[in-house]
Parts: sequence; structure tokens; C-alpha cells
Amino acid sequence: MKRGSAVLAVLLWSTLALAASASAQSQGRISDATQECINCHSLITPGIVADWQKSRHAQVTPAEGLAKPAQQRRISVAKVAPELADIVIGCAECHGMNSAAHPQDSFEHNGFTIHSVVSPPDCATCHPTETTDFADNLMAQAYANLMNNPVYAMMVNNTNGLAEFTDSGFHHLPADDTSNADSCLACHGTDVKVTGTVTRDTAMGEMTFPVLSNWPNAGVGRLNPDGSTGACSSCHTRHQFSIEMARKPYTCAECHKGPDVPAYKVYEVSVHGNIQKSMDKSWNYSAVPWTVGKDFTAPTCAACHASELVDENGETLAKRSHRMNDRLPWRIFGLPYAHPHPIKADTTAIVNKGGLNLPTELTGEPVSAFLISNEEMAERQRRMERVCAGCHSQQWIDGHFDRLDRSIETSNSMTLQATKILSSAWQEGLAQGLPQGANPFDEAIEMKWIEQWLFFGNSVRFATAMGGVDYGVFADGRWTQAKNLQEMADYLKFLRASQPQAEQKK
Amino acid sequence: MKRGSAVLAVLLWSTLALAASASAQSQGRISDATQECINCHSLITPGIVADWQKSRHAQVTPAEGLAKPAQQRRISVAKVAPELADIVIGCAECHGMNSAAHPQDSFEHNGFTIHSVVSPPDCATCHPTETTDFADNLMAQAYANLMNNPVYAMMVNNTNGLAEFTDSGFHHLPADDTSNADSCLACHGTDVKVTGTVTRDTAMGEMTFPVLSNWPNAGVGRLNPDGSTGACSSCHTRHQFSIEMARKPYTCAECHKGPDVPAYKVYEVSVHGNIQKSMDKSWNYSAVPWTVGKDFTAPTCAACHASELVDENGETLAKRSHRMNDRLPWRIFGLPYAHPHPIKADTTAIVNKGGLNLPTELTGEPVSAFLISNEEMAERQRRMERVCAGCHSQQWIDGHFDRLDRSIETSNSMTLQATKILSSAWQEGLAQGLPQGANPFDEAIEMKWIEQWLFFGNSVRFATAMGGVDYGVFADGRWTQAKNLQEMADYLKFLRASQPQAEQKK
Amino acid sequence: MKRGSAVLAVLLWSTLALAASASAQSQGRISDATQECINCHSLITPGIVADWQKSRHAQVTPAEGLAKPAQQRRISVAKVAPELADIVIGCAECHGMNSAAHPQDSFEHNGFTIHSVVSPPDCATCHPTETTDFADNLMAQAYANLMNNPVYAMMVNNTNGLAEFTDSGFHHLPADDTSNADSCLACHGTDVKVTGTVTRDTAMGEMTFPVLSNWPNAGVGRLNPDGSTGACSSCHTRHQFSIEMARKPYTCAECHKGPDVPAYKVYEVSVHGNIQKSMDKSWNYSAVPWTVGKDFTAPTCAACHASELVDENGETLAKRSHRMNDRLPWRIFGLPYAHPHPIKADTTAIVNKGGLNLPTELTGEPVSAFLISNEEMAERQRRMERVCAGCHSQQWIDGHFDRLDRSIETSNSMTLQATKILSSAWQEGLAQGLPQGANPFDEAIEMKWIEQWLFFGNSVRFATAMGGVDYGVFADGRWTQAKNLQEMADYLKFLRASQPQAEQKK
Repeated sequence: MKRGSAVLAVLLWSTLALAASASAQSQGRISDATQECINCHSLITPGIVADWQKSRHAQVTPAEGLAKPAQQRRISVAKVAPELADIVIGCAECHGMNSAAHPQDSFEHNGFTIHSVVSPPDCATCHPTETTDFADNLMAQAYANLMNNPVYAMMVNNTNGLAEFTDSGFHHLPADDTSNADSCLACHGTDVKVTGTVTRDTAMGEMTFPVLSNWPNAGVGRLNPDGSTGACSSCHTRHQFSIEMARKPYTCAECHKGPDVPAYKVYEVSVHGNIQKSMDKSWNYSAVPWTVGKDFTAPTCAACHASELVDENGETLAKRSHRMNDRLPWRIFGLPYAHPHPIKADTTAIVNKGGLNLPTELTGEPVSAFLISNEEMAERQRRMERVCAGCHSQQWIDGHFDRLDRSIETSNSMTLQATKILSSAWQEGLAQGLPQGANPFDEAIEMKWIEQWLFFGNSVRFATAMGGVDYGVFADGRWTQAKNLQEMADYLKFLRASQPQAEQKK
Repeated sequence: MKRGSAVLAVLLWSTLALAASASAQSQGRISDATQECINCHSLITPGIVADWQKSRHAQVTPAEGLAKPAQQRRISVAKVAPELADIVIGCAECHGMNSAAHPQDSFEHNGFTIHSVVSPPDCATCHPTETTDFADNLMAQAYANLMNNPVYAMMVNNTNGLAEFTDSGFHHLPADDTSNADSCLACHGTDVKVTGTVTRDTAMGEMTFPVLSNWPNAGVGRLNPDGSTGACSSCHTRHQFSIEMARKPYTCAECHKGPDVPAYKVYEVSVHGNIQKSMDKSWNYSAVPWTVGKDFTAPTCAACHASELVDENGETLAKRSHRMNDRLPWRIFGLPYAHPHPIKADTTAIVNKGGLNLPTELTGEPVSAFLISNEEMAERQRRMERVCAGCHSQQWIDGHFDRLDRSIETSNSMTLQATKILSSAWQEGLAQGLPQGANPFDEAIEMKWIEQWLFFGNSVRFATAMGGVDYGVFADGRWTQAKNLQEMADYLKFLRASQPQAEQKK
Repeated sequence: MKRGSAVLAVLLWSTLALAASASAQSQGRISDATQECINCHSLITPGIVADWQKSRHAQVTPAEGLAKPAQQRRISVAKVAPELADIVIGCAECHGMNSAAHPQDSFEHNGFTIHSVVSPPDCATCHPTETTDFADNLMAQAYANLMNNPVYAMMVNNTNGLAEFTDSGFHHLPADDTSNADSCLACHGTDVKVTGTVTRDTAMGEMTFPVLSNWPNAGVGRLNPDGSTGACSSCHTRHQFSIEMARKPYTCAECHKGPDVPAYKVYEVSVHGNIQKSMDKSWNYSAVPWTVGKDFTAPTCAACHASELVDENGETLAKRSHRMNDRLPWRIFGLPYAHPHPIKADTTAIVNKGGLNLPTELTGEPVSAFLISNEEMAERQRRMERVCAGCHSQQWIDGHFDRLDRSIETSNSMTLQATKILSSAWQEGLAQGLPQGANPFDEAIEMKWIEQWLFFGNSVRFATAMGGVDYGVFADGRWTQAKNLQEMADYLKFLRASQPQAEQKK
């Protein structure tokens, strides 16, 4: 399209769009800059404009938000800048306001300086407490904790890299960035950098844009071009940013439903999950604070791990927290054994006696120097129990946590047995792993070992923690744990039997 | 907290709570005893009080329930005691009314004698027919049928017990009560007994409570401290006891979604399940009786197995029944083969010619003396067909049941082939099982055999019975059945090859 | 029931039914023939009558449909016959109107000539464009493409046929029609023919009906007794035919949720799927055309593959199409490798250099003569990108499709490695496959090879295409792909080791 006709089109479309974008709530309170964005984008990307129009951002100004009683506020800043106070928060505000902090990815766009990748520091303009909390989160470091840990990086390579079968065995190729971004890093977050610029012929004429590496991505631990870490949009989905959506378990399920971390699968068949699915037509997912029994009658993920909960008398059961492990003493996600939570969000410094960057020894012993103390564990459990006590008696709660202790103990034991079998394989040279200085994750018996803890140990513990019965039994649970162990032992025998004859005599 | 301040707190809280608990429907009809419970518990466990306030129990008195036409009644008692007739049914009624029948678990609590574990005989005060029906159910005996059957008990032990790997093989440890309660018995029900008392420092001051073994639990075949069996709350979830929820398939999914009994997974992808998920916004899940086509347009689990169904002219399609197999001729859950339903709910007396407590021989032949007759099977099928006929022609119905017959026949055959392979392994001493007097469930090839019937045979049959296509093909269906059989045959060869040389010469 | 009393019953019931069937919208506009159907069937099959009464068919006449602006029409015929124009479309219209075109399956029924199996040509009376589009669909040929392809037919046989274990190996039996209809053909469609007649004693007295082979079935590629192919009711579920339902992903999930084609599982955990599940209470699934951002805020299957999409200014983003691959360049469902879409819906003519009826060689090379050109691929991608652009920038879109290209490339490579291992097994005689002229799908290592592409390759590609992260990693994704490959290589060694001694020396 030629520049001239493009400009004409904009003028025509603008008139239509202006009418479309006006709504009762936002009328007259949309900034001029945002209105200019909308004028074109209601035609270029109409879906996100319409989506935003349904958002609270489009309907409430920061001043109105601040006027609410503290417990009902959705923003945590004490005071907003005067130029923001009385407008609704639109395109230009999030994508254009903090340009100075975005030296790499800001660019000129129709007379405005904007950036594509809105980052936690941008959100912190109005939501500083949430942003600070979030930064203390393991999830905020999900990129670094995976990719900068040499142990896990080997596993990433074996998962996403190609293997070529030859007569003399496999030739493993390193994983490429595109596959990593499409696989592990889709949840963990990619490393987004500006790598150049590109000029495109758009409906508005020729335009120049920065080129972003590993884009698109909304992974929770994303490395942003402004140097910050994390993506609020990972859970607060663009562009409606609905608290209703963030509180529904489907948001968490995006990354927490696989066999490695079956949280949502477990929740779905738990009593809590059944109540949520069966009865939530009458729930109010948007109320702040969130009143137990009145607004909702069974916890979702958010209720136990993040939301501000009160009872009908306004008593607080749980403080809002975006540090998702504030109420979690144990990290039941075994690496390879369940262990007390790490002290710091960045876990790359953790190293065990064997020199591996793991929070436990291969024998199961926790690497205590890097993990929270018993006192901190007790305090976190106390906080979680306060949530349980919204509906359950102390005896109920005690019984529940006794089971969790035992579940951690037994699943860790079953991981230890699998580790013994793998050690035998390594020692006998039937697989090439740690003793040989080889990748410990790329042969079949090694991968069976990984599934013992990553899939089955985790499944057993998540099932106990959240009451998803079958995931503790037949669906990757205790049954599968027992079966995989037996199969590993047989596999060891089969590997021995399939060695060349000379080898077999050893 | 000291006693004095606790009492003061109660007084203050009571005032607030009193206001909170009053609702239009329950105003003036809550018993004094229940009101006292609410006064404290709206602060101690506010979620369940609010939940109960939304329940029918909180809004309708037994007298009002009895005043309805018979077909619309939710209670089956002919007449209620005068002291119950005109109050709503709250905390004190269920937890305090039948203390004499609860000699073990009743205890003094703030001037009231109450018990924690409400049991079917308590519910029978108003719902005697439902309770009696339920007692005839396999599910009501789910604890005993599993734990008191020596064959199944071995499988429980192998699933939940630890295995220790040593150079000379595995050392198996018996399963502990905590793991069993957290695993199989979470659905089957635990053995709940009073084992002592405990004094706790509560928000209301020091209080003494009975200690309950294997608590918490809402498993369907729970052994209760009052000597009764079963838990109505397994499906009628506390404390809303919503018929809407019991009729939704998510309730059944709590225990019927695993690979062993994939009923809900199958339902979800069936045409019925699609209609339910897509169209149920306009359904009335609470109407009694439940009108086909008007209140709902596709059956849920409850429609086929439990609910009172009528057409718009009031003609009955199905009688309400809490004997869930009233309309089921076959037990498609193979043990190890699908077979006619057992005559009695308690199946522990069943013994086959081989002396095993199984409803079939290892050859597949049913142990007929303990199973329903052909006549009874025909009668049950007739009842189910009456439900199908609400929407389907007789030719459609006949075609459906022809497929079920064939599905039972073929999946049983595929189980028989797997059994032949396992028998070879036992006979050759490659695994230690029945001929050796050893646990037949704890080695890899044995566990592969179990999955042949428990996972794949069941999946094929459930898929046929309910129309969940892929569960009869690639998702644990015929494909997986065929593949597992091939793998078992190869496994036999691999076990032979991995025997010590001397052994191989045999 | 005797004829006399049956007739009396009809008279009584008719009176009741007449009242029941009258509704505000359909009053006076139901044809006399349909009213007669309803009079009995509101008693015989009340569910489907009530279901139909909720349908648009029962509430809008063709003349009213035609009076709408073109973009809002749900019928594509230019003009309807006068006798149809002003009545609502009921039982007699669909089941009785085109009797002449149903010489095989028409029969006399209470004075009317009707047929049970309503076929696409029947629907074409009002919906000709949709019917024509649909006929160009791979799905419309789903029966023939599976059963008439000798390669796939071998796989059907191995999946659904019985295998008998004997000392000398397996004896494979061919699959029977009943099992096929209950398994693969439940989705693909069965071959429905009239095979005779049957007389039944019904509530209306003795009646004669045609006997239909392989009935019931609503598979998408069904062979109908009128000689036509396909079943509209596969997605437009009887008898409400709700566009809301067809647009919800649960409809597609009926056949697209298994491990072979995990589209719905992937969608469910994608951002799109999360938005749909979390926010759809406020969506309008019934609007025609469907407005992005206003009616819905994330695409369902229908949005990307079938529906007419517009923005709020009425600009078209996508034309309605029942050729589901109109916007799909690649067939990511590998056979065994992902490849450009076939040119023709009927794929039985495709043959590769090796003489197999497959769209790729066993080396991965596409059989180009039968597949769409690069130009056609580009055009289809352009159409799909127009849908993406409803919400996403071009950079976002380009990044997405770069990943899809790489995902196709890498998953195809991992299939190739597995193929090399299988070739080794065949060459060494460790399995009997193509070189031996044997079924290449019926031994364990062959079935492991099939899962490499049919389950894991497909899962990786679907996960990339739709953003369902874990299905590209741990849930049958890259992890499983890598593990299965390692296991296949070990399996080859185990097979070698388990050969008789003489054989091992080779």
C-alpha cells in the first residue's frame, strides 16, 4: 500500500474507530495518546482493543482506585502521579510511559516513543508491592534457574536437542534457541533482546520496528530488554488483566498440568476442584478482598497461594502475596528429592557435596545451607494452616499434614531406590553418566530414573498436598512409582545380558 | 489465649456472627442449638458456615419438604419427629441428634454432646430409602471389599509399601496406615475409630476432642466410629449438600477418572459429555424429579445411574436409586475379567476354583454362584434401556449393546492372552507368583499383566459403554492393549535371556 | 401391547403432547407432518423432541432466515421452496423430505415415508455451500481414507483384531466389523447400509423398520445408505444443532483429544484455551458473523478453522469455511512425517516410491505430486495469519510460524531416527516387517516406532501450533520423543540378546 492511500485509510478508519472505542466508563477519560493508539489499532488488531475495553484498566482511574478502603484496593502505590490519576490506563500508559527505562527496546511509532515488552517495573508504577513480592519468587527466576544451572541445562539439551542414530550409538546435538523457546522456555521465559530493526510495509504504510530475539514469549521468568526479569502477563493475561481469570485454576494450568508438575490435574479431581467446577456459577471471583464462604466455597490455586482472604466479619485469613511460597514450607517438586524451600529465588548458587547444582545430595540429604530453616518452615506452615482453618478443624488439618510428611518420606525413599539402580548401571558401565563425566540424562535407564522423581514422586506428593487421589495411586502415583522401580531393576539385567559376551563375563 | 479473654471474644464475635447468619429463609427457624454452633463457628470455620447457609438444609424445613407432592420430595421419611419438623437442618441436628447411637465418638463440646463423623444412619433420619439403597451398593463396602480380600490386599501392599533395592533383589515392606489412607483408601474409605482424646488450646480456650484414627476421610465405604459403613458426604459434598453438584459429573470424577476406572475421562469426550459441557448453562440441575429434554438435554452419570427421571408428561423413565448397579448387568471393571455383577455388596466371600478371592477364574470363567443370574442381568439391562429410550430408538439401543457385548468379549480375550504369558513366566521361574506362593503383583511383568486388565481392558469397556471413542483406541484402549501384549511377550524373552547362563540352558 | 390399547394410548398421549410441543415461536408454524411425529415421539423419545424445541430449527423459518442481511444468514441457499419457506424445520422436513434420494433406506412409518439416516444432501436443501465445502474436506473422506488404504488397514487390523499367544508366537485374527465400528470408525464413520427389515412390537403396536448395518454412528466420514458421504451431525449435534455447541472446543474434543491427535488437550492449556475457559460466561457464541473481541476474546477451534470472523467495524477477518484446511498449509498429523496438505480429500490414490500408500517416503521426503504446492501453502498461511492479526502483531506472528517450521523439522528428524532403528530390526530379522512382506505394525518395536510419530511427533507439532506448552515437552512431547528413541535403541539390543544362541553369532 502506498503512503498516500494509507494515510487516507487511517483518517476514514479513525472516525469509525473513535465511535467504537467510546464506552460509558471510559468516555472522556482516555488519554489523547491512548486514543490515538486505539484509532488505528481498533482496525489493525481489533481483538486486543476490544479485550482491553472490557478490562478494569479501561474503566477505573488510579484516583478512583486509591479512593477505595485499603483492603479493597487493587493498586498498592500510595500516590500516583497527577498526570495518571484521572485517566484510565491504556495502551500509551503501559507501552509508552517509562521509555527512559527502556533504552534498548523503545522505538518511534507514529510520533510516539513506545516499547513492545511491558515489564514488571512498568507495572510497578501502580502495583509496586506485587512487583516486589513477585521478584522474590522462584518463578521470577525461572529462566536463570533452569538455563544457568549446568545440571538442568544438560537435561534441557537432551530434551530439545536432536539425537542422530548411528551404528556406533547416538550422536547428540545441542538444542537450538528456537526449540528451547518453544519448549521449556515457553513457561520459564525466554531471553528477549533487541537484535536489530526491520522495516515492514503495513496497512499504515512503511514502518520500522525493533527485532526481538526469542519472541513472542510470556514466560514467568522472562529476561526483558529493559534488563528486568519476569512477566506479569504470564498470569494476568493480556489485555483484560482480569482478576477473575488469575484466580481461576485454568491460568495456573497453562504451566502446571504436565506430568512433571501435575498441580492442576490433581486439583481437578480433588474435592476443592469439584466444588469449584460444580458450583462456581454463583461465585464472585472479582471481589477484593475475597470472602471465604460468601464469594467462593472452595479454594482455587490463588486462594491458598496468593489472594487476600477474609471471612464475612472482615477478619484476615491470609494476606495477599505474590511470593507464591510464602505459605509453603516444602518444595514438593523434587530435584531429585523433595526438600525445604530454597532461601533465595535465584537457586543457581546452590551446590551439593558432589559438586552438582542441586538442592539435595543424590542420597536425598538436603543441602541445608541454601534451604530455609525449620523455624521458617514452621512459620510458613502456620500461615497455610490459617487458610485451611477457614473451613477445617485442627484435627483435620493435622491429619492432612501428617500424610504430607509421610508422602514426602516415602516418595523420597522410592527415588533413592531408583538412584541405587542407576548407580549400579553407571558403575558397571552399562550407562555413561556422572562417573564417566557424561550427560547423566540422555540414556533410557537415566530417563527412567528421571521419571521416577520428576513424574511419579512429584505426582504422589502433589496428590497428597491437594487431595487428588488417583494421582497418588494409579495415575503416575504410587503404583507407577513401584512399577517403574521394578522395570528399572529388570532393565539393568537386560542391559547386562545385551552386553557383548566378553563384557558379560565381568 | 487465656480463658477470660477467649470468653470475651466469643461474646463480641457472637454479636457479629448473629447478624451474619440470619438470612431471609432461615430467619427464626434455626434451632437454638444450631444457632449456638454458628455463633462461634462463623468465626472459627467461617467457610463451612457460609457454605451451609447456601444449602437447601438451611432454607427448607422437613415439614415443608414433606408438604410437596411425593415425586418432588427430597426426603423419603414418611413423617418427621415434631421437634425437627419446623426447623432448618443445621450443625446441631446432624452432629448432635443421634448421640446415643454414637457411644464411641460423642463428646462434650461447649455444653453439647456432639460427634464429628456424621454417618449414614444419621442421614437416615430424613433419608431412609436412600440410606438403605446405598447399603446394598458395592461402594458402601469399598473398604471391606478391598482390605479384607487377601488377593487385593497384596496389591495394596505392593502399591503403597516401600521396596528396597539390594544386590540380591527387592525387599518389600508392608504398607503403612498413613500411606494407605492417602492412597487407595482416600476413595475406598478408611477405618475411623476413636483412639483417645486430646486437649487443645483453641481460640475459645482449652478444649478436649476425641482423636480419630485415619482422619480426615470421606471415602465412600468408610468404617465409621458408630459401627456403620459408608459416607454420604463422599458424593453429597459438605456443607452445601447440593443436588446440583451430585448430579454433575465432576463429583464422580473425584474417584472415577484414573486409568483403572476412566469413567469421567470417557464421559468427557462422549457426545453426552460434550452436550453437558457445552449446553449446561441452560440446564436445571436441581429439579426433582429431573425432566429429560426440559431440565437437561444429555445424561450425566447421575441420570443413567441414580436420578429419578421423568418426561414432560410426568411419565417415569427411571426410579431414583442409590444402588448404583440397579441398571447395570455387567461389572465392566474387570477382576481380572469383566463379569456379571456380584449378588451381594460384600464380595469378600467370593472364591474361585483356584482358591483366590476373585469373581472369575484366571481363565476368564465367571464364578457364577456369587454372581447375578441371566434373568437379573436382563432385568437390569431393561431398566437401563428405558433410560436410553428417552432419546434413542430401539435399533440404536440394540446396536449399542451389541457393541458392549463384543467389547467385553474381546477385551476379556486380550486379558486371557496376557495371563498365558504371565503363566509362562511363573512356570519358567522367571517371576515368582502364584505357583511359588509369592505375591503375584510385585514384579514388572506381573504389573504389566495387571495393567492389561485394570487399565486397558477397563478403558476399552468404559469407552464402549459410554461412547468415549479414543479411550477405546489410542488412549489406553485397543491399541495399548495390543501393544502391551506384544511387549509382555518380548519381556518374557528378555527375562529368559537375562537369566544366569546355567539357567538359560534349561 | 395389543394394537387396540396402543391406538387408545396414542390418542390420549397426543392430547398431552400437543400442549407440550406448542411454544411461542413455533406456534402455528410446525408442519402437519412434523406435528404428527411430535405427537407420538414426545412420548416415545421425549428427550429429542424437547431438545429440538430448543433449537433454532424450531424457532426460525427459512423465509425469516433469508430475510436477514447476507452476513448474518445461517443458510446459504438463495431461495427455498415455497412449501418450506414459512414453516419451522422439524422431524418430517429432515427425515422425510428427500425420500426419492433415499431409495435404500426410506420406509413407511405411520403413513409417512421417512429415512433414519439424514445425510449431507438432505442438509444441502438449505445449507448447500456448507455441504459443498465439507465434501472437499479430508474429514468427509475419513472412512475411505482409512479403510481403503491398505497400509492403514493393516494398522486397523492390528489394533482392533485379536492376537492369540501360543508357544510359537502370536496368531493374529482380522478385526471384526463390530469392533471397528466401536473403535476407529466411531470417529471416521461406518459403512451404513440397509441389510433387511425387522418387525418390532412397539408402544404403538407392531411396526416394521429397516435394519441398518454398523449402526448407530455419527462419524464424520460415514458412508450413508443414500450413497452420500459424511455426517453433519458429527459436529452439529442432534437435535439442537446449536452453533454455540459447534463453536465450543468440546465438540472437536470428541475426536481430537487422544494421544494421536491431541488438539484439544493442547488447546486446553494454551493461553487461548485458558481465556476461553475462564472468561466465556460473557461471550456470545451464537452471533453470526462472529465479532473478534466483542463476542469472544480468544479463538476456539471454530474461530481459526471454520467461522466467519469480523471486527467491530464489520471488516472480515476470515470467511466461513467447512473446508477445515483452508487456512492450513501443513498437515502436522504425520503419516509418518508432517507434510504439505494433500491436494484431494480422497487420499487413497497417494502412493510413494516404495509403493506404500503414504504421503511421504520412509525417509521423510514428501510425495509432492499429491500434495499442495508452495504457492498454495503460502496462500493458506496468509489466510491463517489474517486471523492471528486480529490480536497479534506481525512480529509476533512471524515468530510463531518460525517455531512451527522448526518444530516440524525437528520432530520429523526424530521420526527419521526411529525409522532407522526399526529398519535395523527388520534387516536383522529381529522383527518381521516390510522387507519380509509382513504387517509392519504388529510387533512391539514396530508399535514403539508408530508412537514416535503418531503420538510424540504429533504432540510436539500440535503443541507448537496452538501453544500448549507441556505437550511439547513432558506430556508426550520432546522429552518423550527423546526417551522413546533411546528405548527403541536399547530394545534393538535386547532383541538381539534374546535371539537363540546360533542366531546371536551372526
